[in-house]
Amino acid sequence: MSMDVDKEIAGIKAKMESLPGAENKLTMVVLSGDMDKLLAAMIMATGAAAMGMKVVLFFTFWATAALRDPAKRVTGKNLISKMFGMMLPKGRNKLKLSQMHMAGMGASMMKGLMKKKNVASLDQLFEVAGQLAVKIYICEMSMDLMGFKKEEMIDYPELEICGVATMLAHAKESSVQFFI
Amino acid sequence: MSMDVDKEIAGIKAKMESLPGAENKLTMVVLSGDMDKLLAAMIMATGAAAMGMKVVLFFTFWATAALRDPAKRVTGKNLISKMFGMMLPKGRNKLKLSQMHMAGMGASMMKGLMKKKNVASLDQLFEVAGQLAVKIYICEMSMDLMGFKKEEMIDYPELEICGVATMLAHAKESSVQFFI
Amino acid sequence: MSMDVDKEIAGIKAKMESLPGAENKLTMVVLSGDMDKLLAAMIMATGAAAMGMKVVLFFTFWATAALRDPAKRVTGKNLISKMFGMMLPKGRNKLKLSQMHMAGMGASMMKGLMKKKNVASLDQLFEVAGQLAVKIYICEMSMDLMGFKKEEMIDYPELEICGVATMLAHAKESSVQFFI
Repeated sequence: MSMDVDKEIAGIKAKMESLPGAENKLTMVVLSGDMDKLLAAMIMATGAAAMGMKVVLFFTFWATAALRDPAKRVTGKNLISKMFGMMLPKGRNKLKLSQMHMAGMGASMMKGLMKKKNVASLDQLFEVAGQLAVKIYICEMSMDLMGFKKEEMIDYPELEICGVATMLAHAKESSVQFFI
Repeated sequence: MSMDVDKEIAGIKAKMESLPGAENKLTMVVLSGDMDKLLAAMIMATGAAAMGMKVVLFFTFWATAALRDPAKRVTGKNLISKMFGMMLPKGRNKLKLSQMHMAGMGASMMKGLMKKKNVASLDQLFEVAGQLAVKIYICEMSMDLMGFKKEEMIDYPELEICGVATMLAHAKESSVQFFI
Repeated sequence: MSMDVDKEIAGIKAKMESLPGAENKLTMVVLSGDMDKLLAAMIMATGAAAMGMKVVLFFTFWATAALRDPAKRVTGKNLISKMFGMMLPKGRNKLKLSQMHMAGMGASMMKGLMKKKNVASLDQLFEVAGQLAVKIYICEMSMDLMGFKKEEMIDYPELEICGVATMLAHAKESSVQFFI
């Protein structure tokens, strides 16, 4: 009989490990290309990583444009990819605010204010995120749709292209998930 | 003594079943009426269902307009309901993008691009969702506010009207939840 | 041997208590300053509280402006804080809709419609939330950035200023989390 109990207990422990959401982990889907929402995502990501949580970000749609490195050039794009490339903000420092646009003035005002108040900039937040091993995935379908190539993306220690299934697999074992 | 242990183990198993978030399930609240966000929701919904997750969508506010069938006509609406009906996009193929509007051109450009790249359209995603038993709820309060009637909504295998309590009951037993 | 089993069971129980997401609790990050999204947040918050869930709201960025009390005056602000104060909506009754702006007309139309249909207003929802012990946190960094002071915020039974770490600590023990 004691063996049965041991087996039962081992089974319970195994099931507990595999419970969905059982990991101390934050998964965020970032779709928005607004400066304020990307700031919020990166502040939460670095904050969570600093608290010891694993953090996974999945950049999709407009947010992928924010991961471009403005200094990198790629050639061999077709016309429509070139158009997308020009119309979308080239990198995280070209984003606009979701409110208080004021013809684009809002974003620079916010940046000035953040500097004055010693709030970390997007550049600093991405650097800290990299140091804290925040994992960044880019949505494969979005890259394909917008004609972006891996070579024009920022240098980042943990940058990978994947599909929605990989994101969902992370999300379901995470204790916290947000769509931004 | 062995009976006590059996009882303890049975209690633990029962509690484990009833833990919040313990189901392999995705619940999404869809409020946005933007084409790109609805696309993201439907891609995640069908992806999750294909991976074997249960999926529940709760359409509220602007998103309810996207569930209308443009071919269906309803009569007997009062003036304000008629106005809402006219001002909001009539169905999922009339939605705009949340960014890159370009006087509405953005949405058609995106649709053309999706076709070219063999990305599933909203029409196809809803069909797949129905086949994979993705459950769609429509927010009762939103229907009432906007004067929408069940008869003008799309034909969909699992379409039901409910209140926020039903959505929350699903959300709290889900391993993943998103607000879109 | 029976002592070992008892110890194992006690260990399992303790671990089960401390599983992330194991509490019947809803944590929402509210960033948006749109009337419809704040309505959605407050309807979910009061609904969840009425169902017996603990509810925690974390207001950040634009949403903080909605927590201001229009009747309260604060002095001693610098120029940029005064500018922010003037440009952002002064309190929850000055918010706009995220869609159907129609030069601001949309919001008043929606309010009229809600009254007619007996849907609770934001004023009523905040009152109910207070009665149901919904906890409201305001993001410290946002308060600092926008130059808002605690004294100009609404009277609310559970209003506190905190950082992102406090929010994350709540989120990770919650069965449901949303970013709005």
